[in-house]
Amino acid sequence: MNFREIVEADRSYRRFQQGRAIEKSVLEELVNLARISASSANLQPLKYKLSCDADTNARIFPYLNWAGYLTEWVGPEKGERPAAYIVVLGDTEISRHFGYDPGIASQTILLGAAEKGLGGCMIGSLDRRGLADALDISGRYEILLVLAMGIPDETVRLTEATDSIRYYRDEQDEHVVPKRPLSEVIL
Amino acid sequence: MNFREIVEADRSYRRFQQGRAIEKSVLEELVNLARISASSANLQPLKYKLSCDADTNARIFPYLNWAGYLTEWVGPEKGERPAAYIVVLGDTEISRHFGYDPGIASQTILLGAAEKGLGGCMIGSLDRRGLADALDISGRYEILLVLAMGIPDETVRLTEATDSIRYYRDEQDEHVVPKRPLSEVIL
Repeated sequence: MNFREIVEADRSYRRFQQGRAIEKSVLEELVNLARISASSANLQPLKYKLSCDADTNARIFPYLNWAGYLTEWVGPEKGERPAAYIVVLGDTEISRHFGYDPGIASQTILLGAAEKGLGGCMIGSLDRRGLADALDISGRYEILLVLAMGIPDETVRLTEATDSIRYYRDEQDEHVVPKRPLSEVIL
Repeated sequence: MNFREIVEADRSYRRFQQGRAIEKSVLEELVNLARISASSANLQPLKYKLSCDADTNARIFPYLNWAGYLTEWVGPEKGERPAAYIVVLGDTEISRHFGYDPGIASQTILLGAAEKGLGGCMIGSLDRRGLADALDISGRYEILLVLAMGIPDETVRLTEATDSIRYYRDEQDEHVVPKRPLSEVIL
C-alpha cells in the first residue's frame, strides 16, 4: 500500500470483529511509531496503556461514548466491540499542556493499523474519572484519548459535503462521512 | 516504502534545498490527504493557505521561530530556507476549539511529504499577528501551525534519551533527537 491508500483505508471504524484478537506486540509496534514521531519541543509527554485481552477490554468499554450524531445507536453490540484499546495519556510530571501531540501520535498509530488491515476510532468523549478508576490510572496521568481498535466489521464511505457534515448510516447500514471539498478547505 | 519507513523518514527538518521548488499541485495533494482524515465530530474546521513561490515564502519566513533548544542558531540561512509552506488555520465560523485536528492533519501532510522525499517541520512558535498581516489572513481564521517544507538538506538522527530530551547538533552538524525508550512510554 502506498501512503494515499493507507490514508484512504484509515477510516473511523466503530464496529469490529470482536473475536479476532490483536496481539500485544502489534500494539507495541504501533506505539513505537508514535514514539519516534514529532513532539512539541520534543518533550514527549505521552504515555500509553494497552489492552488486548477480553477482561480489560470489558472494563474499558462502559466508559466510552460512541458516534455523537448517531443518536439512536448506543455503540457496538456484543460481538462487534473493539478487540483492543490504546489509552493515550498525558504525563503531567512532564507537561501540563499536550497540545497537538495526541493528534500526531493517534493518527500515526491508526495509519499504521490501517496498513495492517486493522481499523480504529479516536474516542475523546468518555467518562475519564470512571475509566481512570477502572484501570487504576493514577492522578499523575491525564486521559486524553482512547483508541478503539480491531478488524473492521462495517463499511465506511466518504461523500462530498454539500450542506451538513454529520455522518449517518444509509439504508445498507453503511456509515457515510461527508467531507468538505478541497476547494473549500484551501483558501 | 512501507509505513514504518515513511515514519522513520519523517523527521523534523529545518534546513532545506531552498532552490528546489515544490509544485503547488503537490501541496494540494498532501492537503487532500489531511482533508479526508479524522476530525473531531467530523466538523472539519481546518483551512489551509499554501505558499510555494519565492515572494510569498519570503513574506512568511520572518515570523517563524526555529528550534528553541538551539539557542545559538536563529534559523536557516538564505539558500537553506523552506521551499514551501502550508499554513494551518482554524476557521472560527465552524468551531472555536480545534482540539487534536491540527495534529492529525499536520502529521498526515508531513508523512505524505516524507514518502515523496520531502521533509518539513511543524512550527507552533511564531508571530501570529505579524504573519496574519503579511498574508492578509482575516480575523475569521486562527493561525494554528505553519508547516515549513522542502527537500531536506541536513541529517537528523534519533538516539535513545537517557536524561535530557533536548535535541542538539553534534560535531558533524547532524541534528540529534533523543527519544524516550518504548519501555518508558508504555505503562
